[in-house]
Amino acid sequence: MSQEGLLRPGIAQLRVLDMEEAIKHYVEYIGLELVSREADGRVYLKCFDEFHRHSVVLREADTAGIDFFAFKADGQGAVDSFRKRIEEYGLSVDDVAAGEMPGTGGRIGFTIPSGHRIELYADMDLSENAPETKNPYIWHKPPHGMRAQRMDHCLLYGPNIDEVEKFFTTVLDFHLPERVDLPDGTLAIWMTVSNKAHDIAFVKHDEPGKLHHLAFYLEDWHDIGHAADLLTQYDISRDLGPTRHGITRGQTIYFFDPSGNRNEVFAGGYTAYKDHPVRVWDHNNVGRGIFYYERQLNEAFLSVVT
Amino acid sequence: MSQEGLLRPGIAQLRVLDMEEAIKHYVEYIGLELVSREADGRVYLKCFDEFHRHSVVLREADTAGIDFFAFKADGQGAVDSFRKRIEEYGLSVDDVAAGEMPGTGGRIGFTIPSGHRIELYADMDLSENAPETKNPYIWHKPPHGMRAQRMDHCLLYGPNIDEVEKFFTTVLDFHLPERVDLPDGTLAIWMTVSNKAHDIAFVKHDEPGKLHHLAFYLEDWHDIGHAADLLTQYDISRDLGPTRHGITRGQTIYFFDPSGNRNEVFAGGYTAYKDHPVRVWDHNNVGRGIFYYERQLNEAFLSVVT
Amino acid sequence: MSQEGLLRPGIAQLRVLDMEEAIKHYVEYIGLELVSREADGRVYLKCFDEFHRHSVVLREADTAGIDFFAFKADGQGAVDSFRKRIEEYGLSVDDVAAGEMPGTGGRIGFTIPSGHRIELYADMDLSENAPETKNPYIWHKPPHGMRAQRMDHCLLYGPNIDEVEKFFTTVLDFHLPERVDLPDGTLAIWMTVSNKAHDIAFVKHDEPGKLHHLAFYLEDWHDIGHAADLLTQYDISRDLGPTRHGITRGQTIYFFDPSGNRNEVFAGGYTAYKDHPVRVWDHNNVGRGIFYYERQLNEAFLSVVT
Amino acid sequence: MSQEGLLRPGIAQLRVLDMEEAIKHYVEYIGLELVSREADGRVYLKCFDEFHRHSVVLREADTAGIDFFAFKADGQGAVDSFRKRIEEYGLSVDDVAAGEMPGTGGRIGFTIPSGHRIELYADMDLSENAPETKNPYIWHKPPHGMRAQRMDHCLLYGPNIDEVEKFFTTVLDFHLPERVDLPDGTLAIWMTVSNKAHDIAFVKHDEPGKLHHLAFYLEDWHDIGHAADLLTQYDISRDLGPTRHGITRGQTIYFFDPSGNRNEVFAGGYTAYKDHPVRVWDHNNVGRGIFYYERQLNEAFLSVVT
Repeated sequence: MSQEGLLRPGIAQLRVLDMEEAIKHYVEYIGLELVSREADGRVYLKCFDEFHRHSVVLREADTAGIDFFAFKADGQGAVDSFRKRIEEYGLSVDDVAAGEMPGTGGRIGFTIPSGHRIELYADMDLSENAPETKNPYIWHKPPHGMRAQRMDHCLLYGPNIDEVEKFFTTVLDFHLPERVDLPDGTLAIWMTVSNKAHDIAFVKHDEPGKLHHLAFYLEDWHDIGHAADLLTQYDISRDLGPTRHGITRGQTIYFFDPSGNRNEVFAGGYTAYKDHPVRVWDHNNVGRGIFYYERQLNEAFLSVVT
Repeated sequence: MSQEGLLRPGIAQLRVLDMEEAIKHYVEYIGLELVSREADGRVYLKCFDEFHRHSVVLREADTAGIDFFAFKADGQGAVDSFRKRIEEYGLSVDDVAAGEMPGTGGRIGFTIPSGHRIELYADMDLSENAPETKNPYIWHKPPHGMRAQRMDHCLLYGPNIDEVEKFFTTVLDFHLPERVDLPDGTLAIWMTVSNKAHDIAFVKHDEPGKLHHLAFYLEDWHDIGHAADLLTQYDISRDLGPTRHGITRGQTIYFFDPSGNRNEVFAGGYTAYKDHPVRVWDHNNVGRGIFYYERQLNEAFLSVVT
Repeated sequence: MSQEGLLRPGIAQLRVLDMEEAIKHYVEYIGLELVSREADGRVYLKCFDEFHRHSVVLREADTAGIDFFAFKADGQGAVDSFRKRIEEYGLSVDDVAAGEMPGTGGRIGFTIPSGHRIELYADMDLSENAPETKNPYIWHKPPHGMRAQRMDHCLLYGPNIDEVEKFFTTVLDFHLPERVDLPDGTLAIWMTVSNKAHDIAFVKHDEPGKLHHLAFYLEDWHDIGHAADLLTQYDISRDLGPTRHGITRGQTIYFFDPSGNRNEVFAGGYTAYKDHPVRVWDHNNVGRGIFYYERQLNEAFLSVVT
Repeated sequence: MSQEGLLRPGIAQLRVLDMEEAIKHYVEYIGLELVSREADGRVYLKCFDEFHRHSVVLREADTAGIDFFAFKADGQGAVDSFRKRIEEYGLSVDDVAAGEMPGTGGRIGFTIPSGHRIELYADMDLSENAPETKNPYIWHKPPHGMRAQRMDHCLLYGPNIDEVEKFFTTVLDFHLPERVDLPDGTLAIWMTVSNKAHDIAFVKHDEPGKLHHLAFYLEDWHDIGHAADLLTQYDISRDLGPTRHGITRGQTIYFFDPSGNRNEVFAGGYTAYKDHPVRVWDHNNVGRGIFYYERQLNEAFLSVVT
């Protein structure tokens, strides 16, 4: 029945310490579009190649981090069906009314064992600035900044990731293209509900509910290099890269927004299918798995989160 | 329930006039691997980034063209379920026994209203030369030739494409990211069962069962340029490109194998989701839709098929 | 003594039919900067990676074409020395007073046997918007439009190109990396005064003083593809490409400005040294020499000039 | 008089600890061609895009490092003239007879104040495997390994670099596109005898005669990424990159040959002309000058040399 149920990551709501700095970072530097500023202070953004109204929501707060990560479903029936399965699994589900976000239908939310809030929703208005569909040009105008095409995935840190894997694969119908298994258990999992190499990933971590990075998709390695040029041009705090991940094979740079939230710009990565074997990394090779060129983790990878 | 049913194009069986020339073309030039030559004369090939035993099958014959195009399903249950739906739709289904191709389970086959044979199957052995899955390197060795990563899709020419669209979308659960509508009806349709911009496409044509091209996926525009360099180096007959398709946005070159079958090497293309609106092209813009830079069809596009 | 005498192409003065359209084309689309509009109606432009005040000058006129192409010399002594050699060769030399162009010293000019006016000069002010030299960033801001880095070379059409070759190589100290020799004589010559594959080129043509194209240098094949995207986006008249030249090996697109002057954007090309053998093409291969992928000339190449 | 005197770096003779490992590294991995093994044990290599017989010479020895770096001159007259100027400057010049290297004419050599041996020569045979010059294809066959196009430049470490600058600019006619000036004097100089951003560079260092790296030129940033993939694939010791230099703007990776000699693969870099202002870096910005993305030196940059 092709892709049913959940379609893709649809919304990431981030906490930022200073809204104007954050807007400058995400809009001018990464290249998103400012969709709206709302009365409650939240700011809505989208990437140029996304069809729906918004994908990144910024909320000013005293601490950085991620409020929730939401997946778009293929219809309200799917959301209702997932609600039942999630509750049967034993998680409690709450409702967010339609209109809590502009142009967005009702959402359901729940906290997974890693301490993160995940949401599901079926309806969001198409953007007035969506890609053209009648004799379309490839874009309305040349992309700006780092030329981010879409909000792509996030990597979250928290405890109980074996539980998280079980939940995502048996309840939300994700599959798992890749994992890191240490002698004392699983360190990290990459999961997808599509053909992308990952839609969401988790690393085992004592503190619950942490964000490692929110990632944006770029066209190719050339645009990764261009993004690196901009990091220096705009004096943006860089973590690592340009490099490649062994895991997913994606080409990447890690850097930080002004609030300390880590961003990634990412290109490439293999096409994942459910009938492909899981790729597995062990403790002797995890460094190369994360940073393919450096072949070792940097200190920040396992410790700096928001 | 994520991707269920059919997963992707799995096998294309092509007719070639001279087997040794064809092998040289597909293996040395396009960069596939020779998997086996079998007693019935058929030759099995795969791309370096494919997990399963083979994807392209060459059969020597008096005329060029495509014998069939097969989709891999996520389990025999799915194949059985599709058989029932196909028969209910009114097409007759035949069986191809397991082992008719080495390492391949049973297939079902049927002729669609455009005159093409389509097959479905669930089981094929993993390749001995599949991508690594234990602490994997990105490849076993650097890709050669045009560095084709995978057999990607085909474009078929034949009559009754409205019927074909109905069959693929209602029976095989494909969706349709893009189409060309002329004043007198639909000229062409692009359909996918995944997030790729297309897994199969059709153009309206009087003669049934024709092949326009079989496409291979390359990493990016840089590799498209490299493929163009090889076309000249090896004196391969080039049709058009390097250029971009407006439809799918893919970057592309068309050229011919020694038997006259058109090949495409292709990179980029958008990520397709079922909740994205269909892109529609009209007769004033179809030239730009097919060849984005040339903004007009070349004569060969609508007439040269095998 | 390293590079002495002439350094590089420094100024191209083009005739355009409509100044505002031309400015839009060269500034917004190709990506040059508007330096100044002067009282006599001429408009001065430069590329972002050029150090001196201007490189392209537009003059509104009734016919398109090129007024002159000027080379910058390494000092007035070199200009004086060339004047003597040019006059000894038998061409008459005239003077253009300092200040005839803003920020530009005196120039000498002369008409070569192909009917083109060539000028030499030693002094031009540095641009206020030159690349940084104190702890420089790679650019002031990300390049826009087609991201043209510099005015690179021109290809001129006219008679007597054997004479032109002799003049450039024996009087102006150019060397000749590449040529096309037909059975009835030389068709085309590529000459350089530096390590670039060409600073100026000529094709044999009955009419004197004609411009085939003025070329701008882009970073790489990726930017050639981006330029092609812009040609379609802005509905700019395209001649040919993206393709590669066999001659120089440069990656290229040909297109037209609104007045009908052909432009080229160009990347790559080998590094030329005087002790490298001359590359020579014959009439059976000239098509591949000019358009490496197409392997034949298009009709416009030999006939459409301004 | 265009480029007179010295043309380019022509020969680098390196000391390696194990010849077979070195050959594997330079030929299989970096992509050079093995030209000959001679009776004295030296091994001669060239890059695919070089016209002359060899450019890199390997000599097995107990310590790694560089024996000498040689520039090719435009004729014996130029060599004779430079001999006179070098002796007048006060350096003693010795002769290396024609034939000391196969296919190579006589060379002159001298030790510069940094303790390095520099040689000049005018004659070397063209390679049997030189780029084609009669209706040429862009290569004989697709480049392999890291696809190194040419031996490009070296960076040397030693004392007295103010003297070295004076010698290269006033005696050998180099010019200086870029420098690093610390409060206590010049740290580093980049010099060229052509339009390349650098043909040779020096960093101030107490020990004389040291090699920081020998660099090879790649086509573009895409090939830099491919080279990084190969470093990991072949487990080659990587120093830093892929990154960009602020100085020269080149895109780069540093890594080590099996003997500990640092190599660079390098793409891009601006075109240098004598009338461009010198770019100058100070101590607050030198980190960004050397490693544009990291914006700081790594420890190895100033200490690890051979």
